[in-house]
Amino acid sequence: MTPYIDQNKDRFLSELFDLLKIPSVSTDVEYQPDIKKAAAFIAHQLNEIGADKVEICQTAGNPVVYGEKIIDPKLPTVMVYGHYDVQPADPIELWDSPPFEPTIKNGNIYARGASDDKGQMYMHIKAFESMMKNNTLTCNVKFMIEGEEEIGSVNLGDFIKERKADLSADVILISDTGMISLDTPSITVGLRGLSYMEVELTGPNRDLHSGMYGGAVQNPLNALTEVIASLKDKDGHITIPGFYDKVEIISDADRAKMAKAPFDLEAYKAALDLEKEFGEKGYSTNERTSIRPTLDVNGLWGGYTGEGAKTVIPSKAYAKISMRLVPHQTWEEISELFTKHIESIVPDGIRVKVTTHHGGMPVVIPTNSVEFEAANAAYAEAFGKEPIPVRSGGSIPIVALFKEELGLDSVMMGFGLDSDAIHSPNEKFGIANFLKGIETIELFYKHYALLKK
Amino acid sequence: MTPYIDQNKDRFLSELFDLLKIPSVSTDVEYQPDIKKAAAFIAHQLNEIGADKVEICQTAGNPVVYGEKIIDPKLPTVMVYGHYDVQPADPIELWDSPPFEPTIKNGNIYARGASDDKGQMYMHIKAFESMMKNNTLTCNVKFMIEGEEEIGSVNLGDFIKERKADLSADVILISDTGMISLDTPSITVGLRGLSYMEVELTGPNRDLHSGMYGGAVQNPLNALTEVIASLKDKDGHITIPGFYDKVEIISDADRAKMAKAPFDLEAYKAALDLEKEFGEKGYSTNERTSIRPTLDVNGLWGGYTGEGAKTVIPSKAYAKISMRLVPHQTWEEISELFTKHIESIVPDGIRVKVTTHHGGMPVVIPTNSVEFEAANAAYAEAFGKEPIPVRSGGSIPIVALFKEELGLDSVMMGFGLDSDAIHSPNEKFGIANFLKGIETIELFYKHYALLKK
Repeated sequence: MTPYIDQNKDRFLSELFDLLKIPSVSTDVEYQPDIKKAAAFIAHQLNEIGADKVEICQTAGNPVVYGEKIIDPKLPTVMVYGHYDVQPADPIELWDSPPFEPTIKNGNIYARGASDDKGQMYMHIKAFESMMKNNTLTCNVKFMIEGEEEIGSVNLGDFIKERKADLSADVILISDTGMISLDTPSITVGLRGLSYMEVELTGPNRDLHSGMYGGAVQNPLNALTEVIASLKDKDGHITIPGFYDKVEIISDADRAKMAKAPFDLEAYKAALDLEKEFGEKGYSTNERTSIRPTLDVNGLWGGYTGEGAKTVIPSKAYAKISMRLVPHQTWEEISELFTKHIESIVPDGIRVKVTTHHGGMPVVIPTNSVEFEAANAAYAEAFGKEPIPVRSGGSIPIVALFKEELGLDSVMMGFGLDSDAIHSPNEKFGIANFLKGIETIELFYKHYALLKK
Repeated sequence: MTPYIDQNKDRFLSELFDLLKIPSVSTDVEYQPDIKKAAAFIAHQLNEIGADKVEICQTAGNPVVYGEKIIDPKLPTVMVYGHYDVQPADPIELWDSPPFEPTIKNGNIYARGASDDKGQMYMHIKAFESMMKNNTLTCNVKFMIEGEEEIGSVNLGDFIKERKADLSADVILISDTGMISLDTPSITVGLRGLSYMEVELTGPNRDLHSGMYGGAVQNPLNALTEVIASLKDKDGHITIPGFYDKVEIISDADRAKMAKAPFDLEAYKAALDLEKEFGEKGYSTNERTSIRPTLDVNGLWGGYTGEGAKTVIPSKAYAKISMRLVPHQTWEEISELFTKHIESIVPDGIRVKVTTHHGGMPVVIPTNSVEFEAANAAYAEAFGKEPIPVRSGGSIPIVALFKEELGLDSVMMGFGLDSDAIHSPNEKFGIANFLKGIETIELFYKHYALLKK
């Protein structure tokens, strides 16, 4: 740890706590005032540290916070991307401490957004502060912190297109992923894409008494189970026609190389209380969460879901279903294949409406670039060992957009752990990870400037 | 209509409205104060009219309101059964007028409980009033109005066993079913039984990020769809082993007789916006809702069900599933077969908990009894034509209990219509049905006393 980080770490945490206390949930309009509050908080911080042109940029949705420090136009420019919005906290009753009252326990910060992404994004702001205060900033830096990552970055594309001129840079730096452990650092070099869909089935035109009508009316809840159950075969393959057509085939040699990453299946199962391994036939657990696409129901509802019993055949049944994608699937095509397939298999007597929520492209990052080399060197110096390149199962749809619109590669220096429970109750982020992250980020700037010379 | 009903009908309606305004929903503890209020309302009414021994009888659950008028121990005794509890009003947004603010439109009363069963139960109280005021009561009468019918009458069995001595009678009279129409009166002579179950599936021990874990973890929502979808085959037969073993086989001759009841399939489909007929292969729509058992999902939930998108693999998935039963299935056995079957088919990696909510036995009423004959004569006099005996698809579990514990047959004089939307938004009850019901009930007492002489 650098002396500056050591001397200021309590303040860093206290500031982060103030940010974590703001329930900036983007998926629910109820939290709009908190979205604004979180954006203002970031802008205020950037201003305080000495960033220029700090602006809360309005979009058609939640604002993007921008700020920059151009110390010399001839130096390389790092653009930091992160997000201040968070996932909903529910099921709230499963939290051991309130999701928006950050709590320290066993060296971890427990709060919604602790790891995803407020805590990780804030490492960049504090690394920037440290370099500013110590006169060690070796690159220009731009911040682009958005508020819609958890709802698919729906307006960031337009923002980038409109502000292209301001957003020139040499590399995008993102901390919104994980690492294997503090003992085994890793860098994310692949992300799955995402296609997030919603299905609404309608049976009879009103809710019916299941005694009087049961047996003679197609129940949309029963129909929904049939539709969804048919989307995978007994080997875990997805049955949507054309779904696998463009999936990248990884060579046996590459699969063998990936299999060397440290992974303890027994510990994985124990951590989640899983009886046995699960997934698509012919692939390992790590492959199933990285190089293979998936289909998961994320939400299912309809009929009476309260206490006790109600004998109803509802008019409507709903599901939220998402598919994780791999190169070279495109989310638009998969969303369309999904829609057509669902429409074709819905049973007689049921009307169907399929909606695309949002999507994102799968990404694979080149490991032979200056950017990757700089990150590699930063980790090696901070951790005393080289990081392992891994493909993550998650999605950061915006990475593909950065490449497409700005021509920039991203470096994903994530410091979260699998056990951080992001998107779950009791999300956490290790204080050691937070501080180590700040240190490693500073080292990235150092090595990147050296390598770009 | 009798002169007394005609002169007092506005007051009858106004009183009924006061009762309908009380949201006495039994399935949700939140409404406990309203349950008490509704019970007190009934007790007050019985007292006012001149019933004796009026008592709000406490049980382990919601109270039973009792009251009686013994005019002569030598005369036959009619026991009126009804219920003051109602189904929840949700989905509340689909109501055209507030569910607990009764509204008259096109000759109908719109309110939760208008038909099931406050409106129908109240006909008996007003028929009693009419006979008391006009000195035309020809039988002794006992009232037993409970508050747990919509949650399976869970404590009425104990109540009956404890108070057996007070509950002696000659017949049970119930208005909690429907009729074909005001032009085609009918009497319910069969009810399906009910087995209401809840299934909880558990996958991983916490909610997971669907990107990081998707593909390697058994998702309980996906698993739930597989489990439920497998419960019926493509012909609509239920696949639970042993499910049909005790189902009564109705002779072709009896089926032919039943098929003569007036039924307009096109009108039925049009009323519900159904594209085509649906149900178990080899049976007609009327058979599917009367002489055949069913399995329907009444509620399904898990994961993120709010606005927008959340990429979660939840730890838990839930379903409420009920089966309607026919003679000679028993609900205890069916609940057990269901539980065992679900436990046996749950996929690897999923833990399951199956709970029995409540059940009720199927019932067939003899049509060659004095009771039935009296009802028949009452309808014939009130409507000018003989009623058609029909089997209803609904369940009144208590009817089997009355037979078993008190040795009494029930006469089900229901005046609701299929279009009443009981258990649904915009439940209604025709004012004409309400008034005709009072008239017919009075005539039942007259004919019953004559026939029992």
